[in-house]
Amino acid sequence: MSLEDILKQVANHELSVDSAMNQLKGIDELGFAQVDLNRLKRRKVGEVIYGAGKTAQEIKAIAQKLFEVQGSFLATRVHQNQYDEIKALWEEPLLQYDAQCQCLWIESQQEINQKLGKIILVSAGTSDGPVAREAEITLKYLKQPYLRINDIGVAGLHRLLNQVDTLRSASVLIVCAGMEGALPSVVSGLVDCPVIAVPTSVGYGASFGGVSALLGMLNSCSSGISVVNIDNGFGAAYCATQINLLTLYQQ
Amino acid sequence: MSLEDILKQVANHELSVDSAMNQLKGIDELGFAQVDLNRLKRRKVGEVIYGAGKTAQEIKAIAQKLFEVQGSFLATRVHQNQYDEIKALWEEPLLQYDAQCQCLWIESQQEINQKLGKIILVSAGTSDGPVAREAEITLKYLKQPYLRINDIGVAGLHRLLNQVDTLRSASVLIVCAGMEGALPSVVSGLVDCPVIAVPTSVGYGASFGGVSALLGMLNSCSSGISVVNIDNGFGAAYCATQINLLTLYQQ
Amino acid sequence: MSLEDILKQVANHELSVDSAMNQLKGIDELGFAQVDLNRLKRRKVGEVIYGAGKTAQEIKAIAQKLFEVQGSFLATRVHQNQYDEIKALWEEPLLQYDAQCQCLWIESQQEINQKLGKIILVSAGTSDGPVAREAEITLKYLKQPYLRINDIGVAGLHRLLNQVDTLRSASVLIVCAGMEGALPSVVSGLVDCPVIAVPTSVGYGASFGGVSALLGMLNSCSSGISVVNIDNGFGAAYCATQINLLTLYQQ
Amino acid sequence: MSLEDILKQVANHELSVDSAMNQLKGIDELGFAQVDLNRLKRRKVGEVIYGAGKTAQEIKAIAQKLFEVQGSFLATRVHQNQYDEIKALWEEPLLQYDAQCQCLWIESQQEINQKLGKIILVSAGTSDGPVAREAEITLKYLKQPYLRINDIGVAGLHRLLNQVDTLRSASVLIVCAGMEGALPSVVSGLVDCPVIAVPTSVGYGASFGGVSALLGMLNSCSSGISVVNIDNGFGAAYCATQINLLTLYQQ
Amino acid sequence: MSLEDILKQVANHELSVDSAMNQLKGIDELGFAQVDLNRLKRRKVGEVIYGAGKTAQEIKAIAQKLFEVQGSFLATRVHQNQYDEIKALWEEPLLQYDAQCQCLWIESQQEINQKLGKIILVSAGTSDGPVAREAEITLKYLKQPYLRINDIGVAGLHRLLNQVDTLRSASVLIVCAGMEGALPSVVSGLVDCPVIAVPTSVGYGASFGGVSALLGMLNSCSSGISVVNIDNGFGAAYCATQINLLTLYQQ
Amino acid sequence: MSLEDILKQVANHELSVDSAMNQLKGIDELGFAQVDLNRLKRRKVGEVIYGAGKTAQEIKAIAQKLFEVQGSFLATRVHQNQYDEIKALWEEPLLQYDAQCQCLWIESQQEINQKLGKIILVSAGTSDGPVAREAEITLKYLKQPYLRINDIGVAGLHRLLNQVDTLRSASVLIVCAGMEGALPSVVSGLVDCPVIAVPTSVGYGASFGGVSALLGMLNSCSSGISVVNIDNGFGAAYCATQINLLTLYQQ
Amino acid sequence: MSLEDILKQVANHELSVDSAMNQLKGIDELGFAQVDLNRLKRRKVGEVIYGAGKTAQEIKAIAQKLFEVQGSFLATRVHQNQYDEIKALWEEPLLQYDAQCQCLWIESQQEINQKLGKIILVSAGTSDGPVAREAEITLKYLKQPYLRINDIGVAGLHRLLNQVDTLRSASVLIVCAGMEGALPSVVSGLVDCPVIAVPTSVGYGASFGGVSALLGMLNSCSSGISVVNIDNGFGAAYCATQINLLTLYQQ
Amino acid sequence: MSLEDILKQVANHELSVDSAMNQLKGIDELGFAQVDLNRLKRRKVGEVIYGAGKTAQEIKAIAQKLFEVQGSFLATRVHQNQYDEIKALWEEPLLQYDAQCQCLWIESQQEINQKLGKIILVSAGTSDGPVAREAEITLKYLKQPYLRINDIGVAGLHRLLNQVDTLRSASVLIVCAGMEGALPSVVSGLVDCPVIAVPTSVGYGASFGGVSALLGMLNSCSSGISVVNIDNGFGAAYCATQINLLTLYQQ
Repeated sequence: MSLEDILKQVANHELSVDSAMNQLKGIDELGFAQVDLNRLKRRKVGEVIYGAGKTAQEIKAIAQKLFEVQGSFLATRVHQNQYDEIKALWEEPLLQYDAQCQCLWIESQQEINQKLGKIILVSAGTSDGPVAREAEITLKYLKQPYLRINDIGVAGLHRLLNQVDTLRSASVLIVCAGMEGALPSVVSGLVDCPVIAVPTSVGYGASFGGVSALLGMLNSCSSGISVVNIDNGFGAAYCATQINLLTLYQQ
Repeated sequence: MSLEDILKQVANHELSVDSAMNQLKGIDELGFAQVDLNRLKRRKVGEVIYGAGKTAQEIKAIAQKLFEVQGSFLATRVHQNQYDEIKALWEEPLLQYDAQCQCLWIESQQEINQKLGKIILVSAGTSDGPVAREAEITLKYLKQPYLRINDIGVAGLHRLLNQVDTLRSASVLIVCAGMEGALPSVVSGLVDCPVIAVPTSVGYGASFGGVSALLGMLNSCSSGISVVNIDNGFGAAYCATQINLLTLYQQ
Repeated sequence: MSLEDILKQVANHELSVDSAMNQLKGIDELGFAQVDLNRLKRRKVGEVIYGAGKTAQEIKAIAQKLFEVQGSFLATRVHQNQYDEIKALWEEPLLQYDAQCQCLWIESQQEINQKLGKIILVSAGTSDGPVAREAEITLKYLKQPYLRINDIGVAGLHRLLNQVDTLRSASVLIVCAGMEGALPSVVSGLVDCPVIAVPTSVGYGASFGGVSALLGMLNSCSSGISVVNIDNGFGAAYCATQINLLTLYQQ
Repeated sequence: MSLEDILKQVANHELSVDSAMNQLKGIDELGFAQVDLNRLKRRKVGEVIYGAGKTAQEIKAIAQKLFEVQGSFLATRVHQNQYDEIKALWEEPLLQYDAQCQCLWIESQQEINQKLGKIILVSAGTSDGPVAREAEITLKYLKQPYLRINDIGVAGLHRLLNQVDTLRSASVLIVCAGMEGALPSVVSGLVDCPVIAVPTSVGYGASFGGVSALLGMLNSCSSGISVVNIDNGFGAAYCATQINLLTLYQQ
Repeated sequence: MSLEDILKQVANHELSVDSAMNQLKGIDELGFAQVDLNRLKRRKVGEVIYGAGKTAQEIKAIAQKLFEVQGSFLATRVHQNQYDEIKALWEEPLLQYDAQCQCLWIESQQEINQKLGKIILVSAGTSDGPVAREAEITLKYLKQPYLRINDIGVAGLHRLLNQVDTLRSASVLIVCAGMEGALPSVVSGLVDCPVIAVPTSVGYGASFGGVSALLGMLNSCSSGISVVNIDNGFGAAYCATQINLLTLYQQ
Repeated sequence: MSLEDILKQVANHELSVDSAMNQLKGIDELGFAQVDLNRLKRRKVGEVIYGAGKTAQEIKAIAQKLFEVQGSFLATRVHQNQYDEIKALWEEPLLQYDAQCQCLWIESQQEINQKLGKIILVSAGTSDGPVAREAEITLKYLKQPYLRINDIGVAGLHRLLNQVDTLRSASVLIVCAGMEGALPSVVSGLVDCPVIAVPTSVGYGASFGGVSALLGMLNSCSSGISVVNIDNGFGAAYCATQINLLTLYQQ
Repeated sequence: MSLEDILKQVANHELSVDSAMNQLKGIDELGFAQVDLNRLKRRKVGEVIYGAGKTAQEIKAIAQKLFEVQGSFLATRVHQNQYDEIKALWEEPLLQYDAQCQCLWIESQQEINQKLGKIILVSAGTSDGPVAREAEITLKYLKQPYLRINDIGVAGLHRLLNQVDTLRSASVLIVCAGMEGALPSVVSGLVDCPVIAVPTSVGYGASFGGVSALLGMLNSCSSGISVVNIDNGFGAAYCATQINLLTLYQQ
Repeated sequence: MSLEDILKQVANHELSVDSAMNQLKGIDELGFAQVDLNRLKRRKVGEVIYGAGKTAQEIKAIAQKLFEVQGSFLATRVHQNQYDEIKALWEEPLLQYDAQCQCLWIESQQEINQKLGKIILVSAGTSDGPVAREAEITLKYLKQPYLRINDIGVAGLHRLLNQVDTLRSASVLIVCAGMEGALPSVVSGLVDCPVIAVPTSVGYGASFGGVSALLGMLNSCSSGISVVNIDNGFGAAYCATQINLLTLYQQ
């Protein structure tokens, strides 16, 4: 409902001042946090919890509130010891945790819409595993059809060329790479769908914790690449999902 | 045609060795450049010329070759003096040049597909004009339905809030901002479509030629944002187009 | 008027829907810019024009609109050649321009409130002049009582110590310094009022265009210093004004 | 007393040479440290101890000396194990320690002056808690009226808009934010009081330990923001206090 | 075999479609990794495993596959605890591990070709030991004749000058240095063979983990130096080997 | 002649003290410069003049001295206006100048040794032309057999794949690329010879004048790449020559 | 005279309050600048004018004041066009200007003290000329015995070794070098006197305007080197002079 | 003995070839290290061991060799656990270790020359203690008269002003400071002797491990300051000693 509509309904007494006030709020006040309960409606995807820097109690309280309202939740960057504390406090059999990528979540019961396009998630090397895994769990949580292909970095180009037909079947591509981050450039030149590039912190010395891959991706000579933060598998999957939802447009 | 298909046709003598070789090539050799003539087919968008560092003669030759094959071309980062030289050499009435954003192009005669979603192109301030203009010309060249909204930066939030309903009508958003680059974060929190963020080099001192805006966008607390290079209006429009083409998916 | 008040008035038909809509808008749509006309009311200081990257025509149009509504305006970072173009287009005898700091403005007729505290504006060296001048013009434009002291950098400490009593008479201090940016640390240790530090790009080599001064000020061992962007004399004066207005608090 | 006054009193034998010498000194020599005992008088706020890099014995000795003279003290960046050692050495029931933000202090018995303006302390997310807590303890220690609002980051703008009236009641605002650090820009555009921005090291990848937030704040498109060092909650509260004391000006 | 040859053989039925497909593939699919089995043939050196970020199980599986096919393998950046786990799983007496430089390998039984030139491996200081050791093990693994000279940094130039005749006997030089990284410049000026410079992370403060040495080497005033990543002893040895193999050219 | 040999000859009076002194010197003192006349003998390549920062007179004097002794010389980074001044002073018909890459030289009459391997010089895009040209002129000056291939960047991979057989015929490869600098990684994975990577300053925004390409190349996931300074076509050609001379080893 | 002495003299009426006040001041107030007239006495060297960012009028006024009091002055970083303006305003035959290093000065008539040690000023290459020249003029202005040696960079080590005996005759060494900045490390290892290293901005690409040389010098593996700012020939000469004055100690 | 003298003596058979060879060597070959035994003679100060990155055995072996030849040695950056291992292997009662600054040494029996000037070692804060301590131990080891003054940072300027007379009694000053590193600028303006500035890594956030202090010192507006690496107390003391030895010049 637009601002004008709300004002008109208030003028027509179809909406009380209180209700109008509530229309513009969707927040459950927990004291230390303000849970954004209508984000699911506003953005198609509900609030996702960023675990780093929060106490286990804080994560648990926000997660329970979201689970209560949405029937599901996702928290990223939850360390093993935060998880151990949460598990001790919350005996919920649906709770899942992945130690490799530090995600904690409860999946919704919703089915995957088979009319959606397919997201393909590519990683350059086995060492990029944790970042790709964070993206994978996010795609599953967001009920997207996806395929994961590992270890097709540019040092052995034939590994990539063997997959060209598969890559061309994607509606959206997520490409994770560390070191020089060249894989998105090469992949992007071979396909006609959007490519989300994820620089990873894999490397040493002058890779500067992923900066070399990040700069490589931002400066790609191949058009059609957009980039997310270093190691941000979650963000890439979120973007890819928003893009992939357009495959249902006008249906 | 896949590698396997080509090999099978060669085995069946349905395809000569020469033709098979040509299938894998699509290049017009100009000596100083290898024009990628089948990029249009492979990537839905033809090769675009990056003008910086090329001589006027080189740009003209590549442009003419592309125009001949595709009936259109686009060159970015063409300085006024490069353009003056090209114009003197090539008397083509269809040639267009925009001095603000340094684009040179000939538009194709193709109609815009009205079933496509609408891309909305937003800029934070009037000073971001040249970057937004590069994006706009690219969208026009790529035959995308679009709307441009200027000067709704976060310093006067009501200017942005007045546009929320319009922003929500987009299939994809491009958001250009310099200085601290906060606009994509704020916009993204209000909509449910993908947001392509374009950091601009507007600012001084510790903006470091757009680095502050770039870092702000990469670290956005709001999910669903992906980022292109500083001042890369062209790249953002290219990404947005590839995404917007998904609105025709399965039709 | 708060959101709740507006809604209540709408409900009571004391306010039409249109008027309520307008309450939330204060924008004069110029096409390329959205002038924030109620900023003066909302923030006590009206919108100030950032000239860099705008055309002379754009600056003139925004300036005229603001002048019409407020009786005054200020534009920073207006190059000499932008100014020449504006002057040719707009024959307004009240127009003032300062070439050293690239400010263009028309002062309001309002008197300075003599109950306000006094802002003291200090520069470390003669070379910091343009930045200090931008701050000075802003203070004048914003009708603040102020005093300017030049060239008391730490290389000759007695120059500073001679001024201690004067410095202690300030309600707020603005301290501009380039190179190592040590002056705010030393000054701040001698006074009990807030200090706004302005790093300048004065220096060469490892001063990196003002970064050395900026870092020095951010890491000051003396408390009570806050910092604005490199060469941002305008921003410092704006902050100092907002602070100084508190000297009228509860009167 | 000014230098001239001291010299005149010496000339008039109203002040002995020794007393004049002592007038210019206020230092208690502890060997490893020179405690600045007259800072309270000179700067309205006494010396605050920076705990990092000091031994527990050193912190304790300086703290005891300050407590003896002032009846209170504050030490920041005191690690848990430094605190444990201090507690073992100094059995003082008034001693308080906060592990989240690593502050150690004894509060003075002084009352809060109710004529002071109100400082509002805002944080963008729950993860910014430790920095906001350091600011909060400093405000309490410095006897300032304050209000703390958590978790109103720009990803869910309505959470912020719900608080606009409250924010407008502040005399000074402290805004803590990590990641892209956009909150101060947005808040500053909505209020008319000074804003102290505190970048936090919350984030990962290209946030570079708070640099992205720092740059965002320094380059804010909204005027009236000044910035302190990354994670410097103490410094922000100190600045805000010096500013807030101006609300008592001329009373 | 070239692409054209493969196509011709397919056309002539000298090669089946399946065999042609396999010609272009050389990958053993392990699920998490795609081992590049024909790299040995394509590049004269087989795939080398980068251990960082991989699990012990992953390293072991790839290593066993390579050992099976090549009779040898090399893995770099294998931490002691990864090694302990591998050793527990794989009881292979030929397995060697060097804790100083974190290499794990099985050497092939192949003899060193005595017609090859001699690679000389130089380090500036004893602290550069681990990097030089990684290079040394790689040279041994790649069956190159080499000589290692330690601790001839430029602070005591006579140590270097004593070795000039020996240095001049090399076909290729590898020079490892940290801190200011000056040794390659000085050495290169004294010899007529290619110099591979390896910056090491030895140093502190403004050495920034090897950046000072890296920049020193990239900016050498002495020609004929090329540089590898910081601490990349393996990469330098690999380059030196490829260069040294040219000493067998046309024999 | 080794140090020991010189000393022995001195002891045996086969060499006078003066001659021994001269043996250790090879410098022609020009006042402002010390020309290294025996570098040709010591390093197989004579001193090359770095023109930047030198006056035209200085360049001319050094060039004439080298030409006199060696019959040839090469100067890099000689601006057009330096060249104009030199040409006016020195009427030498053999003098050649290339404005694109700012090289000035006189070629020796020496023949190319046809037993040498072939250096292949590759550039990613037409914009890398000036850097590739500097490398090309250096290779010609140093009498190396070479082949130049332009514009085979990774955005259109088939352009590169069409050249694989040619690339495999090289003894050494020089690969110039700007932007993300991915081409050396991809090329290196396809060949078995050493690759010298040259980052170019082609690009904008976050390419930071070639830093993105430099980091990409230093962090290549493909082994066998060593890197020279940004835009250092000369240095790459010098390295490649020293390597290529090994193809004559033991003949 | 110490503070205590001044106070005692005031108490004894041996010194008036006014004279005591003046003792602590030595400033000639020019409005835009506060000339530090007693710096010559306090620091043995008078104030030196930093020309950058000052107007020609400002430089001239300060220079005339210093010349009047000291009989000499030195101004650095005075551009040719600033000089032209000054010369037009001030017809003083003693005025000297050096365009290569942008120094303007009048020498004092004082003789050089022949008991002073000798400063040796070394530059690595001819391109470092302007920086070495700034140092040289400063040494002359400060009446120091000195010797200048050019172009003995480490690429041709024998040029340096030929000068070892001369270098060992210095009391202090100034060593200017750009690019990798290795010369101070090598020189310092051969002598027993203090070495002041001056990084120059000579170089390109990853030399980052002198940063590579600066880092190289700060991280020197050879002890006894201290460093000044990039291109700061003046500062190095000033330091060397203060050090060299110690050779007169206790005489 | 100069090169020429050696050659003459060889010619005159006053020196055997072997002895001449040895004259040019002074190295005890330990396998992993080449101890520079004649550095004491060449540079007045013997080789000092850099402990970081060396094994305890390596440090012990070099230390024993130096002790044997010189009767003393100094090793810096020796961690507590390296020391524990060395102590277990080498039962030498003269061995001293300081855990705060990680120095290990045996002092020589030599007396301090009372004719030397006095070095004064200043630190800005108690937290700079470890760096100042490293400098102090080095001064003691090098037999220099010195005085240490702690905690006179610029936040309380009177602490510094109280010490001005003492500071002026120094022949050389070492000034250690972290955070903004302003103390050397202020001190240098008050004295006439050389100042060696030592940036320390004290600070957090935008101090970047000492970079802010380093830049502040390099860009000091006060002349006569030269700078060593971050936290390099040893290097500063070494420089100060070389400078201070000039106070014995010509006596």
